[in-house]
Amino acid sequence: MKIDLCQMAHSACGPRSGADISLRYKTLLTSSPVLPLATRASRLSFPMGALRLPSLALLFSPSKALRSSSASRPLRLRPPVIRKVSASLSGGASRALSTQSLANEEATPPSAADRKPSSGPEGSVTPRSVDFNAWYLDVIASAELADYGPVRGTMVIRPYGYAIWESIQEYLNSKFKETGHSNMYFPQFIPYSFIEKEASHVEGFSPELALVTIGGGKELEEKLVVRPTSETIVNHMFTQWIQSYRDLPLMINQWANVTRWEMRTKPFVRTLEFLWQEGHTAHATLEEAEKEALQMIDVYRKFAYEQAAIPVIAGRKSRAETFAGATQTYTIEAMMGDRKALQAGTSHNLGQNFSRAFGTQFTDENGQRQHVWQTSWAVSTRFIGGIIMTHGDDAGLMLPPRIAPIQVIIVPIWKTADERTEVLNAAASLERTLRAAGIKVKVDDSEQRTPGWKFNFWEMKGVPLRIEVGPRDIGNRSVVVCRRDIPGKPGKDFGISMEPSKLESHVKSRLEDIQASLLQRAISFRDGNIVDVNSYEELKAVIGQGKWARGPWSAGDNEELKVKEETGATIRCFPFEQPLGKKTCFMTGNPADEVAIFAKSY
Amino acid sequence: MKIDLCQMAHSACGPRSGADISLRYKTLLTSSPVLPLATRASRLSFPMGALRLPSLALLFSPSKALRSSSASRPLRLRPPVIRKVSASLSGGASRALSTQSLANEEATPPSAADRKPSSGPEGSVTPRSVDFNAWYLDVIASAELADYGPVRGTMVIRPYGYAIWESIQEYLNSKFKETGHSNMYFPQFIPYSFIEKEASHVEGFSPELALVTIGGGKELEEKLVVRPTSETIVNHMFTQWIQSYRDLPLMINQWANVTRWEMRTKPFVRTLEFLWQEGHTAHATLEEAEKEALQMIDVYRKFAYEQAAIPVIAGRKSRAETFAGATQTYTIEAMMGDRKALQAGTSHNLGQNFSRAFGTQFTDENGQRQHVWQTSWAVSTRFIGGIIMTHGDDAGLMLPPRIAPIQVIIVPIWKTADERTEVLNAAASLERTLRAAGIKVKVDDSEQRTPGWKFNFWEMKGVPLRIEVGPRDIGNRSVVVCRRDIPGKPGKDFGISMEPSKLESHVKSRLEDIQASLLQRAISFRDGNIVDVNSYEELKAVIGQGKWARGPWSAGDNEELKVKEETGATIRCFPFEQPLGKKTCFMTGNPADEVAIFAKSY
Repeated sequence: MKIDLCQMAHSACGPRSGADISLRYKTLLTSSPVLPLATRASRLSFPMGALRLPSLALLFSPSKALRSSSASRPLRLRPPVIRKVSASLSGGASRALSTQSLANEEATPPSAADRKPSSGPEGSVTPRSVDFNAWYLDVIASAELADYGPVRGTMVIRPYGYAIWESIQEYLNSKFKETGHSNMYFPQFIPYSFIEKEASHVEGFSPELALVTIGGGKELEEKLVVRPTSETIVNHMFTQWIQSYRDLPLMINQWANVTRWEMRTKPFVRTLEFLWQEGHTAHATLEEAEKEALQMIDVYRKFAYEQAAIPVIAGRKSRAETFAGATQTYTIEAMMGDRKALQAGTSHNLGQNFSRAFGTQFTDENGQRQHVWQTSWAVSTRFIGGIIMTHGDDAGLMLPPRIAPIQVIIVPIWKTADERTEVLNAAASLERTLRAAGIKVKVDDSEQRTPGWKFNFWEMKGVPLRIEVGPRDIGNRSVVVCRRDIPGKPGKDFGISMEPSKLESHVKSRLEDIQASLLQRAISFRDGNIVDVNSYEELKAVIGQGKWARGPWSAGDNEELKVKEETGATIRCFPFEQPLGKKTCFMTGNPADEVAIFAKSY
Repeated sequence: MKIDLCQMAHSACGPRSGADISLRYKTLLTSSPVLPLATRASRLSFPMGALRLPSLALLFSPSKALRSSSASRPLRLRPPVIRKVSASLSGGASRALSTQSLANEEATPPSAADRKPSSGPEGSVTPRSVDFNAWYLDVIASAELADYGPVRGTMVIRPYGYAIWESIQEYLNSKFKETGHSNMYFPQFIPYSFIEKEASHVEGFSPELALVTIGGGKELEEKLVVRPTSETIVNHMFTQWIQSYRDLPLMINQWANVTRWEMRTKPFVRTLEFLWQEGHTAHATLEEAEKEALQMIDVYRKFAYEQAAIPVIAGRKSRAETFAGATQTYTIEAMMGDRKALQAGTSHNLGQNFSRAFGTQFTDENGQRQHVWQTSWAVSTRFIGGIIMTHGDDAGLMLPPRIAPIQVIIVPIWKTADERTEVLNAAASLERTLRAAGIKVKVDDSEQRTPGWKFNFWEMKGVPLRIEVGPRDIGNRSVVVCRRDIPGKPGKDFGISMEPSKLESHVKSRLEDIQASLLQRAISFRDGNIVDVNSYEELKAVIGQGKWARGPWSAGDNEELKVKEETGATIRCFPFEQPLGKKTCFMTGNPADEVAIFAKSY
């Protein structure tokens, strides 16, 4: 059960050098006059015994189960991994992720020579500024979020990554139910003929289909598509379930895996198989469908802002970027740390495209047969990629408290056996206090690692708050609380009372601060990298600088294609929030109703 | 959003005839002297307006969201479905389920002539005693649990059926985490070569594989298996993650879809694709693996008994029935209403079979390389079939309260507009009371259906308790509480106080009674249908009567095969609970250590 907490990161974010740890403690020392140097220094030496780390699963289980399970089943962390050492030596932690060829990676990984040499056998991630893609892969490996599957382009979502997905699921699932949707499940095998029924749908999806041609040892009469999305099979069933206007609206959702045969893949962002939710609804009128499509993109927008602290820009896709089979696609576009855009969620008004293709009709209140109006909308495990690339830094992942599987990590610090008992008791008591307050908390009481190693490890994992507690802290009935998002002394609160209500209040307040701060930081970054343009030349310059360009646009598909071919940027969306005033299309000089946002994207 | 509550059951369990309703009310009248006949009779006539039924999704949402959503989005039920009428006329509600050929159904459905004619266009389900298989399919259609998918053998799990799955997931998921397992996700595409690595595994699964041979428009170099189970890919990854004894035990679980190309399918029980959870663990010793395999079958056994009220028999599979690749398979076997056995969950001790095939090794505490010892264990959507076939009756589904998506249905009864307001207010107040007490409750305040229709509808859906509230009840500050599991007057409690604490206490107590009663009834049925045998002749007679036979067994695979060929029965398990005393194998006359249970099975 340790897989979730103790894989490659052991080495990738292993103990900092002595100098590094000294530096850390210097900060602590200068601001904590009550503790003599010897005491603080003693924190650096530890008995090296069996290391015990409760699993992520145990973290959320009732404390009784936690204790009994921990007692009966010692959890041990493995020592630095030899395989990983060589990986680090050969040029960076990202190698540790690879169990398949990287040849199809979206961005070609730099050769060993391009990389900044790792700081030692236990290395660290490639700096973000040096190579954003290598940094991204390093963080995924070191924070143990995912690994490559054996089939090209597939991904194994590891427990810590999956726990983030469960956070996303929990929030969205409750919002879907609140807005009147029921979960259900459609088969993943779709007759090939279904895909062909909607003209633009088949055109959009044909190139990336996986086909089952053999079942039970026999060649199948009709090839089966492994669902790339479910509009066709949903409509096949809706056609049987919908008879009258009384059956409408029909509003469902499913959590499922989908398959798209992508040529260039990247963990979380674009994989052959991924997990998502797909909502599907049918309505009596276009207006209702439109309202639903807008409602759901707003659910996504709120999720991004309020939970993931990602200040997405919501808007409408251009015709060229509209979903294959939709009349209108709404999107939330997020700016990643490298300033590329990530389409983080979409909601489609399907009009009557699928209902006409599948004959999905209802009898209206006047007894007339009409085709239903439909929507579909989806968010996938890609969102996890968005979280990594929005908030992460050179120390690793940085998780917004509201979606963090672990919000607070408690690191007990001791030297003698007596101190150990005292400190672990205090840590357990702090844990109980915080857990009772609904905070996702964990004590890292392993004996095999130094506090310095643990600090790095949990920073790599992006845990928002760390609480340090040592013997002197117990004497003072206080602890040190450190923010993941602010390095060094400015991010530390010293002398925080252990008194339960005070501690709870402080931690909750800090978690809220971090949540707000991550959002604010991302907003500043976003706004500092969107430039208004009034000519194509300006756009080219802005895109050339790696930024997003925003300008009035009323040109056609051909001009849009030209921009893409000449600059690599596409229209990410026509944002819902539009500047006031008269606009002139920067490409054609014609009047324009809206500004569009152009950017390079994932 | 109405799909979950208002599909085929409208017609399948439509209004009872006037005579039927009178009969129902006679019971009520004779036992409720305070109400004059006219008042009770008035309950039978209703204004026919827009019918509003909150969706299942809304049922569980915060009451504020429920109100606002209901207000802004009227939910309407459709009138009796014409398609269904003809289906009923042509021989039974099960026709309503079919959107594909029934040719591959496990049991050949009887022809129209074989069926008891339905009672009219709104029909009812085929009586269980007349045709168990037809009854089963009728209940699935009428209670809106599932429908056929377009590809032979596939199934669409509808919202009400999926909500039962969510109940199962919620319980098991928390138990898995309590016992130290973390969720994660493995890709569903497995290189064909993986399947071939473990000899008995390939032999067991080859005949039922679905193979992807084309991806992105190109023939693949290596065929990909759509996972039938994940031992092979799990081991491929474990081999990379496990280095040392400190990495063990490694305990994970995934919730996923799996595909097995079954020839004879039956909704929930055996479908081409189904949903399940599969746990996979790796340990340093055989003893630990054995302990884990036994622990997990016990989690399943407890779930069956305590949540699903299914008194399964837990035991060990015979060699012939052991999972392909396991050294030992443990099982829970449930007796269905037709006395056939259903294997409802399994837990395998895999020994070192997969670790040897995949080279999954660790360095032990003495520095020696060793192969890990493994387990895997699974429960699937088949369990829903088990619930239907254990508890259901001629009135439809019957759900144990602990897994029922709706535990209490409140049916308000009124005549005039004034009464309507008063009664609906009272019903809403009762709903708030019960919801605040953690009870899953719903008010059926639709105006388009009679109380009699609603009674039948919610009985078909298997809701454990119904509360009836009319104007006179309000005057008396009391309600009528009716049990689903006891028909007629004996199942009704009259004059139950509306006072919140009293009502809550009564309802909770009744739900516990029902939970216990369903289990007790199933235990009695099971025990009444297991017969001890001491000779092969006795076994043949018992199996011939459709019962389970239990007898001492120490014979070999050949004798087991002979029993199967001659009687259709297989060894379901060697139960963990064994009778005391010396035993002699009824087949060979040799000494036997254990009794085995033989039965025909699904």
